Amino acid sequence: MKRFFYPRSIAVFGVSDSPSNLGRIIVQNLDRFGFEGDVYPVGTGEGLVSGKKVLAKIETAKGIPDLAVLLVPAERVPETLDQCGAKGIRHVIIESGGFSELDEGKKLLEDRIRAIAEKWAIKVVGPNCFGVINLEAGVVVPFFILNPAYMGKGSVSLISQSGGIYYDTCMLASFEGVGLNKLISVGNKLATNETDCLEYLIEDEGTKTIGLYLESFSEGKRLMEIAGKTTKPIVCLKANRSRTGHEIARFHTTALAGDDAVADGALRQSGIHRVRNFREMMDAFKIFSLPVLKGRRLALITRSGGHGVLAADAVHRHGFTLAPLSDGFFDLVKSKKINVIRMTNPVDVGDIYDLEFYGEIIEKALQEKEVDGVAFVVTFSSETDGAAVRKVITRAAELTPRYGKPIALCAVTNRDQWSQLRETTGFPLFTDVDDALWALARSLEHHENTARRVFEGQETIRERSVQAIRPVGLSGIADPDGSFSLLKQYGVPVADYSVAKTIDEAIMAAQRIGYPVAVKTASPEVLHKTENQGVVLNVSDSEALRKTIQGMDSDAYLVQKMAPVGVEVIVGGKRDQEFGPIVLLGLGGIFTEVFKDTAIRVAPIDETIAAGMVEGIKGSTILKGFRGQKPRDIKSLAEVLVRISALLIDHPEIVNLDINPLIVLEEGKGCLAVDVKIGISV
Amino acid sequence: MKRFFYPRSIAVFGVSDSPSNLGRIIVQNLDRFGFEGDVYPVGTGEGLVSGKKVLAKIETAKGIPDLAVLLVPAERVPETLDQCGAKGIRHVIIESGGFSELDEGKKLLEDRIRAIAEKWAIKVVGPNCFGVINLEAGVVVPFFILNPAYMGKGSVSLISQSGGIYYDTCMLASFEGVGLNKLISVGNKLATNETDCLEYLIEDEGTKTIGLYLESFSEGKRLMEIAGKTTKPIVCLKANRSRTGHEIARFHTTALAGDDAVADGALRQSGIHRVRNFREMMDAFKIFSLPVLKGRRLALITRSGGHGVLAADAVHRHGFTLAPLSDGFFDLVKSKKINVIRMTNPVDVGDIYDLEFYGEIIEKALQEKEVDGVAFVVTFSSETDGAAVRKVITRAAELTPRYGKPIALCAVTNRDQWSQLRETTGFPLFTDVDDALWALARSLEHHENTARRVFEGQETIRERSVQAIRPVGLSGIADPDGSFSLLKQYGVPVADYSVAKTIDEAIMAAQRIGYPVAVKTASPEVLHKTENQGVVLNVSDSEALRKTIQGMDSDAYLVQKMAPVGVEVIVGGKRDQEFGPIVLLGLGGIFTEVFKDTAIRVAPIDETIAAGMVEGIKGSTILKGFRGQKPRDIKSLAEVLVRISALLIDHPEIVNLDINPLIVLEEGKGCLAVDVKIGISV
Repeated sequence: MKRFFYPRSIAVFGVSDSPSNLGRIIVQNLDRFGFEGDVYPVGTGEGLVSGKKVLAKIETAKGIPDLAVLLVPAERVPETLDQCGAKGIRHVIIESGGFSELDEGKKLLEDRIRAIAEKWAIKVVGPNCFGVINLEAGVVVPFFILNPAYMGKGSVSLISQSGGIYYDTCMLASFEGVGLNKLISVGNKLATNETDCLEYLIEDEGTKTIGLYLESFSEGKRLMEIAGKTTKPIVCLKANRSRTGHEIARFHTTALAGDDAVADGALRQSGIHRVRNFREMMDAFKIFSLPVLKGRRLALITRSGGHGVLAADAVHRHGFTLAPLSDGFFDLVKSKKINVIRMTNPVDVGDIYDLEFYGEIIEKALQEKEVDGVAFVVTFSSETDGAAVRKVITRAAELTPRYGKPIALCAVTNRDQWSQLRETTGFPLFTDVDDALWALARSLEHHENTARRVFEGQETIRERSVQAIRPVGLSGIADPDGSFSLLKQYGVPVADYSVAKTIDEAIMAAQRIGYPVAVKTASPEVLHKTENQGVVLNVSDSEALRKTIQGMDSDAYLVQKMAPVGVEVIVGGKRDQEFGPIVLLGLGGIFTEVFKDTAIRVAPIDETIAAGMVEGIKGSTILKGFRGQKPRDIKSLAEVLVRISALLIDHPEIVNLDINPLIVLEEGKGCLAVDVKIGISV
Repeated sequence: MKRFFYPRSIAVFGVSDSPSNLGRIIVQNLDRFGFEGDVYPVGTGEGLVSGKKVLAKIETAKGIPDLAVLLVPAERVPETLDQCGAKGIRHVIIESGGFSELDEGKKLLEDRIRAIAEKWAIKVVGPNCFGVINLEAGVVVPFFILNPAYMGKGSVSLISQSGGIYYDTCMLASFEGVGLNKLISVGNKLATNETDCLEYLIEDEGTKTIGLYLESFSEGKRLMEIAGKTTKPIVCLKANRSRTGHEIARFHTTALAGDDAVADGALRQSGIHRVRNFREMMDAFKIFSLPVLKGRRLALITRSGGHGVLAADAVHRHGFTLAPLSDGFFDLVKSKKINVIRMTNPVDVGDIYDLEFYGEIIEKALQEKEVDGVAFVVTFSSETDGAAVRKVITRAAELTPRYGKPIALCAVTNRDQWSQLRETTGFPLFTDVDDALWALARSLEHHENTARRVFEGQETIRERSVQAIRPVGLSGIADPDGSFSLLKQYGVPVADYSVAKTIDEAIMAAQRIGYPVAVKTASPEVLHKTENQGVVLNVSDSEALRKTIQGMDSDAYLVQKMAPVGVEVIVGGKRDQEFGPIVLLGLGGIFTEVFKDTAIRVAPIDETIAAGMVEGIKGSTILKGFRGQKPRDIKSLAEVLVRISALLIDHPEIVNLDINPLIVLEEGKGCLAVDVKIGISV
């Protein structure tokens, strides 16, 4: 990838000196951003662009360009790529649109391009993209106008699946004072996808924070593995995907673990910070430009009581605490106070009119041992105050690295002062203290994130030679006996059962198992049993059993020992298109269906990750012993999750698995799977 | 109140020509904003301020000022107020600080001021405030510098309990292009509180939207009544209040209905839009400057696929739907498209480079019958594009009133263009489409809000001459018998019970009631019964009853009929300091404690409001018949809520009431209160 960001020379195809020509903009961008290598404009017309003669053919160029950027009509891309190959160019960005994004039929054209690229061993980015920006080297090849006047160089890099969002990032970063380093627009991901780019940017020295805008995952698991290995913050704006209708209706778990919930779990599991919108992404970029927050104790410094109250609200909302402040700190504050208002945190410094003194106060707060970070809210309007505030900001920029603690600086001012502020400081500024503390919470989360070694458990799971489980007929569903057997094979405890074809067989089975028993239809077609009256519980003797079976419309019956009372959970699994097998945990019934209180992880998981899943649901309160009830066997539940993860990995034919319920017994007594449904790809 | 906003002449006390004098700023602000009436600066020094001679005493002023603004030291406020009274001034704003906000002991000084104000029949705003701004009349009396260059006149008015937030509003409004009308800072609310101001602004012609920043409610119920009568949007940033520790531990409901949850319920009940932070407040101000959104169907127009996906995500997140668009609409789009991308909503107009044409597309979308509102996302960078976008915005400003539909316009651009945009247009602009749709959701909520006649039910509740219920000893808790009797008196169905002192009495009671019974200690000291082993359920006969009572450590027993199985809910009530009696509904157990799934309303409530409470909890899914279970008697539950509301109003001595559980039986079979605890003020 490096050559895409650090080419020594660039050929741009599709350039003319016509004012409406877009290729021209690329050459001009390179010029404006001071790219020092050779640039070869190539196009059918003649003339000069940025003082460079437009070549009719690349073969006439003196040197061999490191990189070619193609902005020619789609149908001319193959021949142009071939010309690049013949010339010896081995890195090509195809910015042209008009491929599979427009028309599925254009896949053939993409195949041709892929073949030509392979023939010449050309690495391709695109098509249908804006290519790369590397502000460290003046490499700016998008075909929209950019200007170094507002594009600040910094340490944030971006990988974007959408050109529009790439464009937005340039605009908003300029506007928010976020310094950018490298950007890449991956377009249709013909040969280079987001994971390839991520792998590169993680190693890239200039990149400290990585932004990802994605609409789909090309290699979900590889992305997780790569992300799991870095400590660089990765911030992902993942657009939701609508649930595919045909899958939802059939299985409980499928409907719950909608694709977006899987993406959510996978990103969390690999330590990637998921944001909901662009504003949050910018706020995350800002906070990650500061030292990471290493604890929950904040000092809040504001210029009014109202701001103090709002800041304290935000402390509560985002899980922070108000740091205790020393007498020494308050002595400093008092030395400048006219009216001595309460000496508390939040610190109200509203009646200190020497704004530059705020720098002293901030430094003193950073020196406090019990302060992990500082939030400072300043409102001002006059030019004089603006000048003083800019000095405070400059000082804050010096202080953060020195003390290794973040300062979330919120500046509120009028339009004129605001513009000046953004032009003169590279230090991240927030407006709303609530947003600033949201961002600080991401910083702390990053610090605390120890679950990044996502697939450590993978090695410990031995390769098995296993036999695939088969569906019954064309149903796509495994029969109950086979399903329970599979669970047992993986060490998941199952409530004792037998399958019977006749009443007599059922009675014999019940005698072996011991009454009371539950009787279920063993027909795999019946999915939601409790709704379909396919289950009778607490059958107490042989007479009752006989009547029960007579009343059932089935040809096979599962006679099962009644499970003891416990907390009912759902353990589910499914095969996700992008991430492979995933494991789901939720409390039974309404908790999962109405409150959506579930935890999802990508398999394989180890017991630490499984324990995190149990902790991750609100319903864990019940498992831990709610209102005087005995705590449940959480350890055993975590084990079941690990085993189901292994089962799903060994059995790629399983598309859905749903243990509902799994009864979690008292601590030390384990779990018991009472019902299971397994869906198999047919 | 009107005279505060429209004075014909203003005296300003505490003025000198010293550069550090703050009173001077008030006079200068009035000058800058073109206040046309007479201004009388009063102060101890001499000299000129804004060309006006500083008077030593107000008595030497020629006319009688309509309004006086006091910025003199706290201890000199009484005499100054007296001078105002003597001169005939009847409206005074006390901006000086140094009162009860600083020191509880200064309440005496506030009392003196109140007495002087009463003597002269002076209306007072403040102290400790920034006073008023009325941009319609050039009345700008805060003592911080403001400039008409960035303060746009509009229709948003603000009432603020914090000076800092008032200041912020001025700054952010200038910055966000939100036009302000009138602002008032109420400070310590000595004689004028937020509700007085609200009452005025609701009648004020220039005010279309009202912002409230509050840290406490002075007259919660009056605020609700007044707010409930207007259709003007009221947006409230209410700072959370921490739960008062001593109250929490004792009662279940009290801990749940923390004050902030009550505020939340009360604001919702009166149709006030509560926002979480200042950013949301600004976004709400922006959206309410447009026609209200009357339905869920949105047309999304963006310049890239990525924006379309993010916009569609936001549609889903905020409960909207994608409007179907007609062929006629797409014909217009096609007429300018270079590549015909999918003709769907979201509409991608990225390859239309004639940006002014977007105005046509927006108008066409507004004309669509099935479109309730439009969201338009435009990213641009060049000056030429900026000029075109400004034309589109101007057109949008003309179109919204014409079609009576809102256009949420999101503009993303570089810093330079952004500043230009904000300076040249008064039309509300958003940056993030997710934020814009959040705001549109508030607009729709406002349109749909039919529950604003909050206290309509009040009249229907007849006055009762009721006897107060008494606590047992000093416990502060009513005995079970008295509590159940009170419920019965109000028509709340109670599971049949008797109170027994001895085993024999208990057995007789059980015989009357019929086995199985539940036995509970009748000692009011035992609060959380299930945790304290004070309850034994399902006692099946007299022998079991004898043993049960022998095993209980109590001197009185409640023998109660075992309630049939049903859905358990908690119905609670408490007396809130700011809003009076409130009613709470939650599902039993973990739903209320862990998921905080509760609904709170301020009493009195009628059956419509009560039905809304039931709808308002997620757990209503269970009540409606979850997974094939029979629906529960929701109507009866709503009736119980109404009756409890009446009970609480009639019994001001009750500070807490907790029916836990109330069993909701099948539809048509009513409810049954199984346990109740009533706390009484002692």
